[in-house]
Amino acid sequence: MTTLGDSFHVYDTTLRDGAQREGISYSVNDKLVVARLLDSLGVGFIEGGWPGALPKDTEFFARAAAGDLELKHAQLVAFGATRKAGAKVHEDQQVRALLDSRAPVVTLVAKSDRRHIERALRTDVAENCAMVKDTVRFLVGEGRRVFLDAEHFFDGYAFDPDTALRVLESAVEGGADVVVLCDTNGGQLPLGLSRTVADVVARTGFRVGIHCQDDTSCAVANTIAAVQAGATHVQCTANGYGERAGNADLFAVVGNLVTKLGMPVLPAESLPELTRVSHALAEIANIAPDTHQAYVGSSAFAHKAGLHASAIKVDPELYNHIDPEAVGNGMRVLVTEMAGRASLELKGREFGIDLARKPEALSSAVRKVKELEAGGWSFEAADASLELLLRGELSELDSPPFALESYRVVLDHRSDGLIVSEATVKVHVAGERVIATAEGNGPVHALDAALRKALLPHLSWLDRVELNDYKVRILTDQHGTDAVTRVLVESTDGEREWTTVGVHGNIVEASWLALCDALAHKAMRAAADLVGS
Amino acid sequence: MTTLGDSFHVYDTTLRDGAQREGISYSVNDKLVVARLLDSLGVGFIEGGWPGALPKDTEFFARAAAGDLELKHAQLVAFGATRKAGAKVHEDQQVRALLDSRAPVVTLVAKSDRRHIERALRTDVAENCAMVKDTVRFLVGEGRRVFLDAEHFFDGYAFDPDTALRVLESAVEGGADVVVLCDTNGGQLPLGLSRTVADVVARTGFRVGIHCQDDTSCAVANTIAAVQAGATHVQCTANGYGERAGNADLFAVVGNLVTKLGMPVLPAESLPELTRVSHALAEIANIAPDTHQAYVGSSAFAHKAGLHASAIKVDPELYNHIDPEAVGNGMRVLVTEMAGRASLELKGREFGIDLARKPEALSSAVRKVKELEAGGWSFEAADASLELLLRGELSELDSPPFALESYRVVLDHRSDGLIVSEATVKVHVAGERVIATAEGNGPVHALDAALRKALLPHLSWLDRVELNDYKVRILTDQHGTDAVTRVLVESTDGEREWTTVGVHGNIVEASWLALCDALAHKAMRAAADLVGS
Repeated sequence: MTTLGDSFHVYDTTLRDGAQREGISYSVNDKLVVARLLDSLGVGFIEGGWPGALPKDTEFFARAAAGDLELKHAQLVAFGATRKAGAKVHEDQQVRALLDSRAPVVTLVAKSDRRHIERALRTDVAENCAMVKDTVRFLVGEGRRVFLDAEHFFDGYAFDPDTALRVLESAVEGGADVVVLCDTNGGQLPLGLSRTVADVVARTGFRVGIHCQDDTSCAVANTIAAVQAGATHVQCTANGYGERAGNADLFAVVGNLVTKLGMPVLPAESLPELTRVSHALAEIANIAPDTHQAYVGSSAFAHKAGLHASAIKVDPELYNHIDPEAVGNGMRVLVTEMAGRASLELKGREFGIDLARKPEALSSAVRKVKELEAGGWSFEAADASLELLLRGELSELDSPPFALESYRVVLDHRSDGLIVSEATVKVHVAGERVIATAEGNGPVHALDAALRKALLPHLSWLDRVELNDYKVRILTDQHGTDAVTRVLVESTDGEREWTTVGVHGNIVEASWLALCDALAHKAMRAAADLVGS
Repeated sequence: MTTLGDSFHVYDTTLRDGAQREGISYSVNDKLVVARLLDSLGVGFIEGGWPGALPKDTEFFARAAAGDLELKHAQLVAFGATRKAGAKVHEDQQVRALLDSRAPVVTLVAKSDRRHIERALRTDVAENCAMVKDTVRFLVGEGRRVFLDAEHFFDGYAFDPDTALRVLESAVEGGADVVVLCDTNGGQLPLGLSRTVADVVARTGFRVGIHCQDDTSCAVANTIAAVQAGATHVQCTANGYGERAGNADLFAVVGNLVTKLGMPVLPAESLPELTRVSHALAEIANIAPDTHQAYVGSSAFAHKAGLHASAIKVDPELYNHIDPEAVGNGMRVLVTEMAGRASLELKGREFGIDLARKPEALSSAVRKVKELEAGGWSFEAADASLELLLRGELSELDSPPFALESYRVVLDHRSDGLIVSEATVKVHVAGERVIATAEGNGPVHALDAALRKALLPHLSWLDRVELNDYKVRILTDQHGTDAVTRVLVESTDGEREWTTVGVHGNIVEASWLALCDALAHKAMRAAADLVGS
């Protein structure tokens, strides 16, 4: 629960509306990881998708219900539409799918602009309101909490306020307990929007939420203005991902509510996590983080103005609107990237490593991380590689489980159309030199297969280790295929999952480095388990 | 002149405050090109830099004065500081440099927060005010128009309003005709900021300007709120470039003022130029355009929601907050998992293909796209591949420019640590069988190099085609490296850019498919250009 409890809702829709952003395509596993990260921040609600409409979303809810997603703070929300016009609600397949999702909360989208009701939905206001009321009542009767997203509300209210309000009333009569005013086409500015929100609150007394799009570059400001006008439920997406210009950015909205308006909308311990979580969510979406993003961007507290540098050092609060550490960011004239002493020390604590007592190892780790990050490495989403690096600095690591002599990968697209990938590795393991060759679906798969073949007789735990996910990001574009490649590998042994990173100009070598870290991390844990048992 | 004349100022500071953005470094020539582009839009003032402080800026003003910059609409502004504490204004070298720049307008920056005056400037309020008044009076006496940038005004006004107002009064007493309230650390929100602006206007009657930074993600909203509270001078930068999180984006501010508040702040014929000029300015700054930027981003009017595509086609104004053509942008419908006839027909229209009259070809294209998307293809960001597919369905394509017989890629991580990638292609082009081998930084780079080597003697346009960007996404996880790989390749021939897609279990083959489409698309355009000329 947030410190404001149910009286104020931070409602995240990264997994539904955020996924509308051009270029985003979450897998079901991605969605589970995103939900866990959002939950770790303490948001109140996570809208997971539209079960029934999109197969991946249906599967996401099924896996969540089956126990793959344990939430500590948030409630899971299924998004969907009302029953169809002229149909019976309990016979509507789409409404059924919302129940079947087993999500405790359902957000229904409904039209509230008469022009949309008549021209897009091709029905009348009375039937539209009946659709809303029937569907809300049905879901509430089945034990669900229901919110209403009133689509195109602001244009609708300006065009025909009575219709817009009737739609809200229908929802509340059906049992909905929040009506969310949506600036669906994003055309609002704060002054006009806040007047409408205040007006609706005054006229209806309903609990009002806000959902803003960024088409005027005012989504964050509009969201804040709505709160100041009486809204107590804000819908946001991580990093502002969303259709067209995007949605209101969760991190800026939360940053503003907490640090500017003094509203504790997230648990206090979450605030220093904002930067890390923002970057991790960008990695999962496979979108380069926006370096100039408010609060969490790597440049958000970077000062270039040379003439102020010394004054900034003495009196940073004169030049920064907040203390960057408060949101887990750093002022760049003092610290670069993520590699501040404080953040590495914090990360170390997560791994059970006390770096505060080893100032020299900490300094050396900070130096190494900075060097690597300058070359394109990123540990934000690769905890396992970072843990290996930190333990290496403390000389806590045994030697790696194997040593590479060489590998060769051959890819043939033959004249008969057959495509063959074959890899040969030469490694030293347990005092032996082993050569193994294997085929795979691609160069990395072949390399992984050959490595396993070579190591399996010598490493008892290897058969339980599998690759879960493999992500590739090309850095420093402008150079086409000549660029540096960053590979993230997620591994699992059936009990836990860990992520490692590799960076190189050659994608296969970058993958190799991440694969090696993945096995080294497992070997380290296996050794610790032996000691522990 | 803008249609509002001198009564409202659009004041651009891309060349001074915008250049503070991390990564931007304009040459003098760049600055001249930027100034011409901004002038072509009809902005009222162009702040060119800080002559005397920065040698490049001094040279820029010298070249402008020498006739290298003829401005049709805008007046050139030199930015600088007041005289030093305890010094005589006419002996101050920095103030002299402002005169020497021969800019008709000078904007002076001055401290208005007592804490900054005392702790950073190490002087007192009286001397600070004398510095302001002396310097303004001196410059006005020399025939310059003077504006005052009141630094950290909002924090200063909250801390000690009397001091903040005394600084403004000193400037106006000296002869300044606009006092610009600067949210220098960017910490303001619209409601509080607009109260302060209204308060200052009411208490002083001065002409007030506004300068906002984006640290709360509210720079555009704050600028608009200030105008609604009485400001008649807005300072912006192109694309919001600026220190930390950036400044108020000129394009969003102008878009909002013109289309939402009905204020003709730029000549009417400039509005459809916003998108083009925004992208040109990004090119000069060497920063990838923000695809999700309000008004001018390539995704700003891109709709993904498949279920609405048919309604969008009939009634676009129901879904866009403005007509995208009004700002020189265009509506795009993204072809996604939910692609239907309507969205493909709309896409066809973008390419100049009338699919409405070819229902069978359309049906077949819909079927093919669905099949491909089920297999992991995505045409959302790969218009060129989609155009090839659609024209293929209409039998409008010549045979591809070359045919593959086979390729082989060998990757060696040698025992001495050296990593070598080498590719051999065997292709048929212009009636010949060609074999070529090349090395590269990685497998795809080697393959691209070998293919170019084989084709270059036969395809006259190939030397102009380059890879701009290369993106990789691994799909259907659960399978680790065994997954399907989607590759997006962005190509350029110096005039236009196009993106193609390839999907395969093998990353190298996926890349190969995208590379082949890239060349096929260029060949199609080259053939069309020949026909057209």
